[in-house]
Amino acid sequence: MDKSYKIFLSEKDMPRQWYNLAADLPGQMNPPLGPDGNPVTPDKLAPVFPMNLIEQEVSTQRWIDIPEGILELLYRWRPSPLVRARFLEKALDTPARIYYKNESVSPAGSHKPNTAVAQAWYNKQFGIKKLVTETGAGQWGSALAFACSLLGLECKVYMVRISFDQKPFRKLMMKAWGANCIASPSNETKSGRDILAENPDTPGSLGIAISEAVEEAVTDASGETRYSLGSVLNHVMLHQTIIGLEAKKQLELANEKKVDVVIGCAGGGSNFAGISFPYVYDKINGAEIDIIPVEPTSCPTLTRAPFHYDHGDTAGMTPLLAMHTLGHSFIPPPIHAGGLRYHGIAPLISHSVHHGLMNPQAIDQLECYEAALTFATTEGIIVAPETGHAVAQAIREAKKAKEEGREKVILFNLSGHGLMDLVGYDKFLNGELTDHSMPDSDLQKFTEVLKKYPSPQ
Amino acid sequence: MDKSYKIFLSEKDMPRQWYNLAADLPGQMNPPLGPDGNPVTPDKLAPVFPMNLIEQEVSTQRWIDIPEGILELLYRWRPSPLVRARFLEKALDTPARIYYKNESVSPAGSHKPNTAVAQAWYNKQFGIKKLVTETGAGQWGSALAFACSLLGLECKVYMVRISFDQKPFRKLMMKAWGANCIASPSNETKSGRDILAENPDTPGSLGIAISEAVEEAVTDASGETRYSLGSVLNHVMLHQTIIGLEAKKQLELANEKKVDVVIGCAGGGSNFAGISFPYVYDKINGAEIDIIPVEPTSCPTLTRAPFHYDHGDTAGMTPLLAMHTLGHSFIPPPIHAGGLRYHGIAPLISHSVHHGLMNPQAIDQLECYEAALTFATTEGIIVAPETGHAVAQAIREAKKAKEEGREKVILFNLSGHGLMDLVGYDKFLNGELTDHSMPDSDLQKFTEVLKKYPSPQ
Repeated sequence: MDKSYKIFLSEKDMPRQWYNLAADLPGQMNPPLGPDGNPVTPDKLAPVFPMNLIEQEVSTQRWIDIPEGILELLYRWRPSPLVRARFLEKALDTPARIYYKNESVSPAGSHKPNTAVAQAWYNKQFGIKKLVTETGAGQWGSALAFACSLLGLECKVYMVRISFDQKPFRKLMMKAWGANCIASPSNETKSGRDILAENPDTPGSLGIAISEAVEEAVTDASGETRYSLGSVLNHVMLHQTIIGLEAKKQLELANEKKVDVVIGCAGGGSNFAGISFPYVYDKINGAEIDIIPVEPTSCPTLTRAPFHYDHGDTAGMTPLLAMHTLGHSFIPPPIHAGGLRYHGIAPLISHSVHHGLMNPQAIDQLECYEAALTFATTEGIIVAPETGHAVAQAIREAKKAKEEGREKVILFNLSGHGLMDLVGYDKFLNGELTDHSMPDSDLQKFTEVLKKYPSPQ
Repeated sequence: MDKSYKIFLSEKDMPRQWYNLAADLPGQMNPPLGPDGNPVTPDKLAPVFPMNLIEQEVSTQRWIDIPEGILELLYRWRPSPLVRARFLEKALDTPARIYYKNESVSPAGSHKPNTAVAQAWYNKQFGIKKLVTETGAGQWGSALAFACSLLGLECKVYMVRISFDQKPFRKLMMKAWGANCIASPSNETKSGRDILAENPDTPGSLGIAISEAVEEAVTDASGETRYSLGSVLNHVMLHQTIIGLEAKKQLELANEKKVDVVIGCAGGGSNFAGISFPYVYDKINGAEIDIIPVEPTSCPTLTRAPFHYDHGDTAGMTPLLAMHTLGHSFIPPPIHAGGLRYHGIAPLISHSVHHGLMNPQAIDQLECYEAALTFATTEGIIVAPETGHAVAQAIREAKKAKEEGREKVILFNLSGHGLMDLVGYDKFLNGELTDHSMPDSDLQKFTEVLKKYPSPQ
């Protein structure tokens, strides 16, 4: 058995292909539907995304080559370390071997740059000069700003106003990387102006910011501007699979023959997809693996919400996607894991859960902060509040392994550090946080809106 | 030639000994002097530091074994990557090969934990239960909090009040790691109370915070409390040499036969000592290497201040140290590289400069931010404002190599990331920063105080 803590992979051993789960899923994926109720054709998406990414979005090819130009971008921080959490194991006195993939080592501090650099590169190849996106707390906006700065693309980020005002630091990161980050709603789009006319003091929302970003992309007369999304879509999941593919190689280097449990926190689903899809492939091919997306009890998309067609945004402007969804009018409670407050989740994950390939769990934020503090004082890293959900589930599994007396191998994704999210830790330590488990009445209320839309097959 | 960007060292190849420059320096080191003008004996320091660290402080043994327990603490993030800055090289169109050691990968985000974990471990070995320290912006305080949390030691940090009020995030890091961080001056010490009685609205200072921390350590009746310092002292420099020792091994792996320039930013001197001392050893033994500590023009300790005996703190409570010093009453201008605003610098570095082994440079903060932004948009990492000084010098050297048409090898220390120091970047981008080069009249005024103290030999 390898004695080391961190298992490094050399750059020359970094995976050269992404894994596309769409090639292997059982059953037929339900296609996105347009306003007319018919499947959305690629040409309809052309004003929004460049055609090379649209091709990836609809591809069912199992392995997709990573272009040399993207590898070079990824080398700035990849391969990321796989770490054996020996200190956490010791503290839990568990026979389980716990490994985590440390995605916090990217310059933006999370897994988000894995797809940001890929999307920026494909857009540049397609002749695009400017990318527009939205961001909540700023994790995705800063990742795209970083990617655009490396490639010399212009970058514009619509940031939800309340975060823009209250969380200045990721805004400053975007600025340091040369992006133009403005508060949404803004006066720069028709949808922004309409909302401001009606309610000048609105705190904004992710739904509004998406509307503004898409509007700017599709109305730009030069034809050289596109929109970029940091989660949910198939091509985003694809780009993230490098996480799990690296982890597999690193576990082999550590002489681990088998993984028993794979864990990631899940909001839109991209970091969870990244660590888990290569293992879903194994599971489809007969391996016994427990694959666990972890969500907050306050936003129980996979554990309690129906699998249904719904819009990806609050305003109802996007195509209908077949996914587990709380309904697009869902109003998230004020939990600190901002990245896990999305009403839906990636169609590829929803389809997998629907077919029994995954075992979703929901955990309340108090247990997650408790777990994150255990992690900080053993392994040393202060993780993002989102990542705290993965840590909490890993600890649950390690305790179960102890009860069962089994030497399980547990792998989880450390999707980001929490150095810019310390206010949540502070509130937890001051006893100011509470559980926000969703009451049944809310679930019923929010999912009411889905009745308007068709059921997936 | 190796084609990779990052050169990883495996844990089993991590250095097993620190290098002690005191063993090899030419001439005689000037000893610290007590209030009576006589050299301070180890027993005088016993109420402040544990005896095992005092022994290291006065040791002249060249190689000192790193205990297995400390290696295990360091494995949490070490060996740190050595990175070939190929993207920066390309942007500068230089024939130079630029490498940087990335110390920002530690959980606290800087090189400081290298000595924090060592000091905490030695204190624990000596039976100490609690460490007390001071911190300015919080970089050192958070590193010691991290170290103490891993070892189960109590940790108390006196943080300069103005930083405590204006820079809440590193304070929250300390809290997450279980430390008790309070604003200084406080009501918890006599020196704090005296100052508050005189001036209740004082913003505090590092000098006052040192006084409070030392007072708490030496007056603790249990005998189980000691003080810990994050820079300046010999044993701190010793613990940081693992940076340069790793870099040497990694450059060998990259097939580099020779290093031409070694660069680090220098405040108290610990990160610069870490990267450079193993190369000073080579220089003493005949190698041609340009070894460059870089300081701000606003705090020109090595480039303009005399080599003289002076106190380490503002209040004049510490022993007199022989060092380059601006005088302990120096009031630093408001530059954003808070870690480079110290009036003195480590005696080991001062002695080396005095003997011509180093070639100090001073750079103003505007050039440093400009360089840091070039780095952020090529290599991707947003560095700490302190580290910006090392980047600026590396860029100067790369440009010089281009002018000379020489394939120089340049190594610098990336001492920390700037994710918690983004306000300085913002001000720079808004054109709100100015140069603060020290006028001759200030230099004369501040060094006046030195006339009271003896000259070193």
